[in-house]
Order: sequence, then C-alpha cells, then structure tokens
Amino acid sequence: MTKTIGEYLEKVRQAKPLIHHITNYVSVNDCANIALQLGALPVMADAAEEVEEMVSLASALVLNIGTLNSRTVDSMIRAGKKANQLGKPVVFDPVGCGATSYRTDTTFRLLEEVKVTVLKGNAGEIGTLAGLEAEVRGVETGSVVGNLSEAGQSLASRLGAIVVITGATDLVCSASSVATVSNGHPFLGRITGTGCMAATAIAAFLPVAEDHFTAAVAALASFGIAAELAAQNGPQGPLSFKTAFLDAVAELTPHQVNAMARIS
Amino acid sequence: MTKTIGEYLEKVRQAKPLIHHITNYVSVNDCANIALQLGALPVMADAAEEVEEMVSLASALVLNIGTLNSRTVDSMIRAGKKANQLGKPVVFDPVGCGATSYRTDTTFRLLEEVKVTVLKGNAGEIGTLAGLEAEVRGVETGSVVGNLSEAGQSLASRLGAIVVITGATDLVCSASSVATVSNGHPFLGRITGTGCMAATAIAAFLPVAEDHFTAAVAALASFGIAAELAAQNGPQGPLSFKTAFLDAVAELTPHQVNAMARIS
Amino acid sequence: MTKTIGEYLEKVRQAKPLIHHITNYVSVNDCANIALQLGALPVMADAAEEVEEMVSLASALVLNIGTLNSRTVDSMIRAGKKANQLGKPVVFDPVGCGATSYRTDTTFRLLEEVKVTVLKGNAGEIGTLAGLEAEVRGVETGSVVGNLSEAGQSLASRLGAIVVITGATDLVCSASSVATVSNGHPFLGRITGTGCMAATAIAAFLPVAEDHFTAAVAALASFGIAAELAAQNGPQGPLSFKTAFLDAVAELTPHQVNAMARIS
Repeated sequence: MTKTIGEYLEKVRQAKPLIHHITNYVSVNDCANIALQLGALPVMADAAEEVEEMVSLASALVLNIGTLNSRTVDSMIRAGKKANQLGKPVVFDPVGCGATSYRTDTTFRLLEEVKVTVLKGNAGEIGTLAGLEAEVRGVETGSVVGNLSEAGQSLASRLGAIVVITGATDLVCSASSVATVSNGHPFLGRITGTGCMAATAIAAFLPVAEDHFTAAVAALASFGIAAELAAQNGPQGPLSFKTAFLDAVAELTPHQVNAMARIS
Repeated sequence: MTKTIGEYLEKVRQAKPLIHHITNYVSVNDCANIALQLGALPVMADAAEEVEEMVSLASALVLNIGTLNSRTVDSMIRAGKKANQLGKPVVFDPVGCGATSYRTDTTFRLLEEVKVTVLKGNAGEIGTLAGLEAEVRGVETGSVVGNLSEAGQSLASRLGAIVVITGATDLVCSASSVATVSNGHPFLGRITGTGCMAATAIAAFLPVAEDHFTAAVAALASFGIAAELAAQNGPQGPLSFKTAFLDAVAELTPHQVNAMARIS
Repeated sequence: MTKTIGEYLEKVRQAKPLIHHITNYVSVNDCANIALQLGALPVMADAAEEVEEMVSLASALVLNIGTLNSRTVDSMIRAGKKANQLGKPVVFDPVGCGATSYRTDTTFRLLEEVKVTVLKGNAGEIGTLAGLEAEVRGVETGSVVGNLSEAGQSLASRLGAIVVITGATDLVCSASSVATVSNGHPFLGRITGTGCMAATAIAAFLPVAEDHFTAAVAALASFGIAAELAAQNGPQGPLSFKTAFLDAVAELTPHQVNAMARIS
C-alpha cells in the first residue's frame, strides 16, 4: 500500500471534495485551512435549519464535540442521520469523551443514532469508549491501561467502522486488521487543534479512496509527512511549526507521500 | 481617483473607527486582526441584549452569515435596523448564499429588513441574488453564467447600495458606475477568511470616505496591495503568506496605495 | 521577589494544570495555545450540562465575557459557583465592561454571584468598575481619569481579590500592596487577544504559587518577557510577532524570567 497512497492526495486535489464540519470554535479556523491546503473545500454550518441540506451538498461530514452544546449536538445528529441516508461518510471526533459525563453520554448517543464511518480519538477517548481504564485530562491528552489495538479492533467490529487512535504512532483499526502510521513530529503535540485537523484530513480522503481503511491511512501518513517536512526547516517553536506545517500540506506531493510514508 | 485613495488609509488610522461585527466563528480572529492592522478598532458582539447599544457606539457594522443561526440572525436584524436609524454604514457579507435555502432566505430577509450600505460577496453569492444561474459550493467558491457587472449594477440599483463582487479582479458596482480593482494575489484564494477580512476593510474605510463607492474601492485596493507586498517577500506557502499579509497591512503607506493601485 | 519568580514557570511545567475556560470565540485559539506553551493544559467547555463537572477536574477557571450571551453567562455563573465551593481559583476578565450596559451589568452580576480570585482588565474596564470616569471604546482600548492604583486597591479590598490592570505597565493590586510589572512590548497592543492570553497565563500560575498576588506578578512578568524576547528577533510586523511571542513562551526559561523581570 505504501508505494501508492500518494495517489489519493492527488485525487483529493482533483475532486476538491466539500467537507461539512460541525465542530468546535477553538480549532475551526485550522480545520478550514487544512482542508484548503489539502485541496478540499471546507464549510462550517451548524444551524438545525440547514445542516441536512448542507450535508447533502457535501462529500463528507465531520462531527466534533470539542465545544458541544445542546443546540449543536442536535444539529450533529440531524446532519449525521442525513449523511447516513445519503451514504456519505461521517468522521466523528469525540473530543474529551471520558472527561465529563456530558461528553461521554453524548458520544454514546451519537454512536447510537448515527452510523459513523471513522471514529477518531486519542488513547484516552477511544480507551473510554472501549471500556479500558482511561485517564482523560480535558481534551488535550489521555492515557489508558490495556491493549489499544485490541480495543480499537473490538470497537471497530462493534461499530462497523474504522477506528483511528492518534498518538506518537497512529493506529488505524478495522474489525479484521490494524495498520500503524509512524509519521509525524513531536511539535504536533505542542499546539492545539492537531487532532481536529487530522479528522478533517481523513474526511477529505474518504470520498476519493476505494475503502475507508486506506483513506484513513493515507490521510494520516500525508498529515505526518507534512509535519516532518515542516520540522526540517527548523521552526523557532511550536507556532512557527504550525504555519510551516500548513504550508507543507499545501506543497505536499504524492511522490513525497509515497517515499516517506512509514506504515506497517 | 487612483492617485489620492491612499489618503483614506491615513484617515482610517487617524479616526480609528470602531467596527462592530456580528460574524462567523471561523475567521473572526482574522477580522479582528485586520481591523487593528488597518488602524481601526474591532468589536465582536452578538447578544440581542447589547447589539443595539454596541452599534450605537460604533462607526460601522459588519454582518456576516458564515456560521449563522437563529439567535445571531435575530441580533443581525436588530443591529442592522439600529444602524439604519442612526445613519451608520452597514456591510453585509451573505456567505454561502445560494448554497442552502436557509442562507438564501436569510439573505433576502436581511436585505428586506436592513438597508445595507455595501453588499459584498463572491460571484456565486452575488449571482444568486441577482438571479443569474449560479453554482455555489459551500462558502469558498462559486461561479456564474452571465454578465457579473450588469448583475451587480442592477442589484445596486434595486438595493440602493454599493455591490462588491470579489474575485481575481474585484468589481465595485453602483447603479451608475462600475470600477474594477485588479490588485491582489492568488494566495488570497488559498486561505480561509479573506472574503470576510475584505468586508472588515470596507467597513473601516466607509466612515472616513466622502462616498461609499470610493470607500469600497480604496479598501479593496489597499487590501490587494498589501497582498502583493506580502507575496514579494517570498512566503513559503499560503499560511506564511497570511502572516505576511497582515503584517503588510500594518505597514502599508498611503504612498504605496497611490503608487500601486490598479483601478479602472 | 524578582530573583525567584522564575521558579513558578518551572512549577507550571511540572504540574501541567488543567485550565477551564469559558471564553469568547475571537481569541480562544490563542488562549489554548498560550496555555500549552506555558506547560498548562487548556480546556474550553461552556455547556451548562458539563461546566460544573469540568471545573471540578480543573486547577483553575477563566471567565471572559468578550462575546457573552445569556447561555454562556449562565454557564459562567454555574462554573464560578462550583469553583468557589471547591476552592479553585477563578480569573475573571470583564471584556468591554463599560462599553455596553449588558457587559457592565453582567460584570456586576458575576462579581456578586462568584467570588473571583483575580479580576483582570484594562484601564477602562477596571476604571468603570472602580467608579472612575472611564472611556471604553469596544473591547480593545480604554482610558480613565483618576488614580488607577488607588482604584485597583480599593476594588481589591472590596472584592477580597487581586486586581490586575494591564497596560504598558501592568498593575497588580491587593488591598495592602501594589506591584508594577514593566515587561512587555508595544506589539502586544497591536494584535487582538493579548489581554485574554494574559488572563490564561495568570490562571496557569495560580495553582502553583503560594499566594495569588505572586502568581499574577510572575505570570505577567513571564508574559512580558516572552514578548521582549520575541521582539528581539525583529519580526516583520504584528502578526509575525504574535507567532514569535508564542514560540518564546514555549522556550522561556526560569533563568530568563529571573534575569529580565522588571517588577517594583
């Protein structure tokens, strides 16, 4: 797979898929910008009056509960159900699941009412959902006791979804297989919004790949490689890195993705 | 006109007009920063309880439906009516008009209830309003079939407003005349929020120019020239460009505006 | 005090306090990033359903009315009362107090219902609260007639809180003493969100210092020193400075803080 995943980046740029986000107000600008740099078109729309129509126009939907409230959760469910009806892929990022019962309960409710294509979280969030002993401190970090890839596969099987667990090494789990993506850079952990941006990247690749597993792997490898390229230029610190990272996403070539991907 | 529009930039810096925004949560930080770099003062306030008082203190109002919902639309109408009563200029940015019926209907409702000074959109948004055959994909792009400047003039006449259509070349339309502003750089199209920032720039110039048409032209020329200056320094990519662009706005001189403006 | 305040920065990095924010959607990304660069963990959560639980997990709470509405004000009061019950420090930033009666009334209501640990504002905001003749233009600037440090002390005494008045020189006032922090750079006044970020910095230091007064002084000195270091590298303008500033916060050492602090 490694040698050909770069082609999906090319396909994103040709198809320019419209990615509908219902997301938090912290990293929303970064999500819009990474979508554009990948070659996709972002749209952020969370009003009950329009989310069904907007998702009908889109090629994928991103749901993110980073700054959830009852109004936006209602809109997420409406949009998610409509996406399901229309067969459009849904990426769900259960930000802070495990931190408060509202976030955990909302996550279970969303997974009950909406069939998600890709569930993406950090170790603490996915561990919480999988029933592992998890510690979640706010939304930026989390840790678990237990076997993450087994938990991811079990959750993937239960949900009929791809489960992505981000970290120093990303895990992409289906019911039947697990891939690891080792691209990336520690700077990604020192700025806010990288997890949210990774969800946008996966959503951008889903409409153009044959299968959801490959889409997630290709998106995460492209994301991590852009981070490596950005770090090569010696940024002064995490925020300089962030600018360089988004620039690197814009300049990333399929050849670079194929040559640098570290997938197993 | 070209030789003297730089003076309006100077006047913005002297008057430091307070610009009240009711806008989306995607590009709001960029709008605040471009207002500051132009020499204006931004304020973002969307609560029904205060928008009338806030607009009374302001020199101009920006209404932007990028992430509209029923609460903020209500506040936009309140603020807009109050601005009308007080004779304060209103810039309206109908983001995504034509993409969903909620956005299109809200745009018509706002134009019905509030007299806008400047209506600013991309080709798809303004084309939709003017009754042209328009394609609007989300909020970032749009295209139309038909004569845009005729449509802009017809709409300007109907609304008694200036109609601005942004693109590689910007059109500024009144009932009686059309100006084109050819300043700018393709990088502006590769980051999110540039359309929103252009609306803020126009709002900053409206209180200091003799007429609204000139204000829009001067604002768009200044905006585009800052982009050209930013691009001269060879940014590494779209996000480096964004930082350089806002820095260039801060450093822009009236002399540069007069020397570099490409208006016809 | 000057020679040892650097140790508090070290303590923030060791303790990694979770800072719960209920804040505006303009500068929220900057607040999250400065928390991370200081070594703290940010979390933004404003739903009534979860703010009490979230603040229970946090080490400090930041309340900021920059883009207040009735829903988020209700959440601020819930979270603040819970923080009070649990003895967790609360930083309150009454953004735009004095600009509209809604902001002024909400500020008085919050101060009535929640015991704040640190009240932080600019001259206009604090002057308004202290009963001085104040001019507040939107949220970015304000000026007063009268003795600010006396007003700050009087307010500190009345509220049983530390009162911080930010400006070219910051004042930190308790009922019994006043410190001035002269670190900083004029560029801080040319970008949006620096006041909000200063509140986050204070909140990060409160859980690790013996007393609130010292925490505020150490936070403001660290903040200002990072700005000075960022400016030394010759940024091209205000936005380049902003990136350099956040990078400098990430790289700041206790030694630099001790060596460069200008406190009296």
